[in-house]
Amino acid sequence: MNVIKIGICGLGTVGAGVLTVMQRNADLLNRRAGRAMRVSHVGTRRPKPDLNTADITLSDDIFAVVNDPDVDIVVELIGGYEPAFELVMQAIANGKHVVTANKALIAVHGNAIFTAAEAKGVSVRYEAAVAGGIPIIKALREGLSANKIEWLAGIINGTGNYILTEMRDKGRLFADVLADAQQLGYAEADPTFDVEGIDAAHKLVILASLAFAMPLNIDNCFTQGISAVAPQDVTLATELGYRIKHLGIARRTAKGIEMRVHPTLIPHRRLIANVDGVMNAVLVKGDAVDATLYYGAGAGAEPTASSVIADIVDLVRLSEAPYNAQVLSLGESADTLVEHRVLSINEIESAYYLRVMVDDKPGVLSHITQILSDSGISIDAVLQKESDQHQGHGLPAGHVAVVLITDVIVEAIFTSAVKNIEALDSVTDTVTFIRVESLA
Amino acid sequence: MNVIKIGICGLGTVGAGVLTVMQRNADLLNRRAGRAMRVSHVGTRRPKPDLNTADITLSDDIFAVVNDPDVDIVVELIGGYEPAFELVMQAIANGKHVVTANKALIAVHGNAIFTAAEAKGVSVRYEAAVAGGIPIIKALREGLSANKIEWLAGIINGTGNYILTEMRDKGRLFADVLADAQQLGYAEADPTFDVEGIDAAHKLVILASLAFAMPLNIDNCFTQGISAVAPQDVTLATELGYRIKHLGIARRTAKGIEMRVHPTLIPHRRLIANVDGVMNAVLVKGDAVDATLYYGAGAGAEPTASSVIADIVDLVRLSEAPYNAQVLSLGESADTLVEHRVLSINEIESAYYLRVMVDDKPGVLSHITQILSDSGISIDAVLQKESDQHQGHGLPAGHVAVVLITDVIVEAIFTSAVKNIEALDSVTDTVTFIRVESLA
Repeated sequence: MNVIKIGICGLGTVGAGVLTVMQRNADLLNRRAGRAMRVSHVGTRRPKPDLNTADITLSDDIFAVVNDPDVDIVVELIGGYEPAFELVMQAIANGKHVVTANKALIAVHGNAIFTAAEAKGVSVRYEAAVAGGIPIIKALREGLSANKIEWLAGIINGTGNYILTEMRDKGRLFADVLADAQQLGYAEADPTFDVEGIDAAHKLVILASLAFAMPLNIDNCFTQGISAVAPQDVTLATELGYRIKHLGIARRTAKGIEMRVHPTLIPHRRLIANVDGVMNAVLVKGDAVDATLYYGAGAGAEPTASSVIADIVDLVRLSEAPYNAQVLSLGESADTLVEHRVLSINEIESAYYLRVMVDDKPGVLSHITQILSDSGISIDAVLQKESDQHQGHGLPAGHVAVVLITDVIVEAIFTSAVKNIEALDSVTDTVTFIRVESLA
Repeated sequence: MNVIKIGICGLGTVGAGVLTVMQRNADLLNRRAGRAMRVSHVGTRRPKPDLNTADITLSDDIFAVVNDPDVDIVVELIGGYEPAFELVMQAIANGKHVVTANKALIAVHGNAIFTAAEAKGVSVRYEAAVAGGIPIIKALREGLSANKIEWLAGIINGTGNYILTEMRDKGRLFADVLADAQQLGYAEADPTFDVEGIDAAHKLVILASLAFAMPLNIDNCFTQGISAVAPQDVTLATELGYRIKHLGIARRTAKGIEMRVHPTLIPHRRLIANVDGVMNAVLVKGDAVDATLYYGAGAGAEPTASSVIADIVDLVRLSEAPYNAQVLSLGESADTLVEHRVLSINEIESAYYLRVMVDDKPGVLSHITQILSDSGISIDAVLQKESDQHQGHGLPAGHVAVVLITDVIVEAIFTSAVKNIEALDSVTDTVTFIRVESLA
């Protein structure tokens, strides 16, 4: 049997991790793939002298890897949209299988890539693109293949989860924790992708396409970050028995698909509410299996390498099989994917936490509950914080915080009620609201 | 393309679940497998009139299914050792792939079954045998294939976890909760397999073989049940910041493999410590990925069916592939498995919780700590409960409970120290000890 040759494009953190783990566990990988593999060609402009690159062709042009006739599998680890897209399309055109860790690339260009791969009869695998080392793509695509997926919800950005965990554990402000996270290397110098939910949206779109067998649809993912989460809401949520997590949620409903990234209150006894720090987790609800959860490191050199290499081992094992033995990128053929309508945020259904700052006058609570009741919104819990109870909540003195948790309602109806509440004379500020999910 | 024909042996709870889900999600399954499949033959002595069996051959002899030349994949759902073993071996001899949910069969006869299957060039899959609907076999065998697995720890018996959860939440006695669990159908009339850890040992042995690429070795799994867990230890563990869970633990050490099922104290902030009720979870530590966790329903008709069908879909997808494209039952060829030595319980290393009932006299604690210190055992935490603090702990009046948590030590050294403690005049009862795992 021929040794299967792997070409790696990009030798940053993840690329170095892939090379290191493939060398350290080489015998194990060959046994698990049932045949031998080796990294034969690496394309990078920044070779790392501490890595063992004996017997590996080094090119400073990544396209040399893709155009190397000896390379069987191309591993794209350069990140970003370009030249990653061109590189992957060239690899496919050259008849090579592709493994990538690039969530932005798959979320934005996945449809073109998967269609080209299927037409050419090669595989594109991307386990490392979502939730780092957690084998969530394999779980959704193969482990849960018996199920019609009803919904999934994930903590799929470690930076955001670290910040929210610190805010809760230590009562700190978003901006302070972010500054620390940047110092610790948990957050980028430009944290927009992480804290505004763009990175999570990329991953959610991939999970949703796989779960619901639909083309990737990044344009219709509602995305709200965590930069506006106030410490008083973190504290009040805890008092009410909830935790605030930055969730990506995809749900199949009779009206269409909900696809949304936003801060979310979750009952504290739910397992996913206890996923803290930089860790990731994805909760998946299938019609047969009910709820399952997958937890692990969402980033880092070796956890990400773990997923990249698992994809490689699968492809190597299948190297003599006909194409119809390969599991396709979205679990089924591009021909059978269905363009489900993605709901706008106004159309989704959720429960809501709302905090209304009011003057300390009699009757205010009844005005608020009357507005909600008139809109057909039921109330699950009420908490009223008088000014002398404000210590530790960061609430301004002389005001009262009325905190409510509603039942599930269509968002448009809820936000319309919020406008009416804000129009009340005794309401002193815009209403803060956060969506609440029971995840059961 | 030919329709792949599935034969099901046994139409109990799980068999009915498999048939129901395969019919409900038929289109989905065919798309995910890339070709059509259908249940063509069911062997059962108890046909269920409420199931749709149109177009299915029904036999009251399960061997008729195995010997049906039209059947491509045999699904064994009769449970137990015999005739399940004979049935599976006959299916293999007839050149059919096998899917089974039978943990006892695989744990005890797996080596013979896997060797026969490899010689014949057919696959044996058993996702449903461990942790019900959780795709943990696929995760270990494929999702984490890049990793050298260092250890795993699982809550892999739902009945036991339900009982321990009720004991903690409601301060109840083991026997009372068990009686209720039997009424609710969570526990069998004969609960021995569940509460004495035999069922968990079957599952642990399978997980360990897969994790460490070694033949199945049920004889050397240390097995201790939960029937002796006292409510006062549940309460004291909580006070010390721990939860008691019935864990199956497999660990690779320099001396050999640890493989053990027993009640275990886990720090309460660990995610797995928060897996409650009948739910299962498996924590896996790989050298590249670090810790990952998999959570879901460990039993039930449709969760178990979810795993059975996932195995079927994989086999159907691979139906035209050469045998070397199949992932083997233990992830690699029987030829390359290594018979690692399994350590006796005396050789394992653990931290320990111990509760010593003593007369309320001065100097007792120092005698106990002196014995531990003389054995080279460090102490992590001490809690002394005077007789007037015994309310709610179920401790006898007039005595003092000395509770200690030790550092990690070889078990033989620890139990020898326990004997010395029990020999002290002021110690009024045998010492209760429970192993403690940090799982980090």
